[in-house]
Amino acid sequence: MTDHTDQRLGEVQFAVDPAKVPDASLAYIGRVRSPWTERSQCPRNLREARDRGGGGRALIDPPFRPALEGLNVGDWVHLLTWLHRSRRDLALQMPRHAERPKGTFALRSPVRPNPIGLHLVHLVEIDLSSGVLTLDAIDVLDGTPLIDLKPYLPGVDRPPET
Amino acid sequence: MTDHTDQRLGEVQFAVDPAKVPDASLAYIGRVRSPWTERSQCPRNLREARDRGGGGRALIDPPFRPALEGLNVGDWVHLLTWLHRSRRDLALQMPRHAERPKGTFALRSPVRPNPIGLHLVHLVEIDLSSGVLTLDAIDVLDGTPLIDLKPYLPGVDRPPET
Repeated sequence: MTDHTDQRLGEVQFAVDPAKVPDASLAYIGRVRSPWTERSQCPRNLREARDRGGGGRALIDPPFRPALEGLNVGDWVHLLTWLHRSRRDLALQMPRHAERPKGTFALRSPVRPNPIGLHLVHLVEIDLSSGVLTLDAIDVLDGTPLIDLKPYLPGVDRPPET
Repeated sequence: MTDHTDQRLGEVQFAVDPAKVPDASLAYIGRVRSPWTERSQCPRNLREARDRGGGGRALIDPPFRPALEGLNVGDWVHLLTWLHRSRRDLALQMPRHAERPKGTFALRSPVRPNPIGLHLVHLVEIDLSSGVLTLDAIDVLDGTPLIDLKPYLPGVDRPPET
């Protein structure tokens, strides 16, 4: 259990601290560069980030750059980030302006037992040699670690028959 | 560097072994129950899993069950899995029937530096007290660890204007 004391009324912690259960380990593959350096500035989601403009970049570390081969400008990709500044201990959370708390798995809050961010972004520019991907927008703090990139496939990434 | 010797022609390993770079730790929140107990049987994606039938379940461990509050039958959710039996060392991979190798980040292969699976599934039944979610289908091996669940939000999880 972490000792956060800034809980809102109705919020409930997990009975274990996920940060202290090392079932598997992640390797960072790079970092996000974004216009947002303070939590208070950070857009709440990608729609808001697009509206506000400013773009963003994914900087891929040298060992992982060869794995970018085959991505193309214009592609939509899921970025997976590790929201390293998020707490991990809340089971029920009180979203701002909500009337009652909601389960973490029913929310897209960055606060989750494994604080993985899922961001569907558009590749505007790709530089394979420097490992720089220019994005249409991004909704995480500058410096957030990257852990995966996956091509968006409408056949599996949208509910069928929509 | 792992010592896998079953590389296909054209496949290339990363210059570091991601399994040995512990930048962050994951806590398993549960396990997937699926009809697939052997790799050779496992569907290649969710579309194939739906066609073949058999459903699947997500079993959430007791400490994490309170976080399910607010999910509803009929919801579409992203399951995030940890594909624990996948190798993590390939930068370029030769997909079956492909003519040339492709970068890992341009593929949805389970082989990736952080073997996270992303699966958009339909909630058919929810039992909050036992932590059992019945799914329309799932495309991973029985016993695969779960690391997150996120509600599907069309406003951010689809490319805009489609």
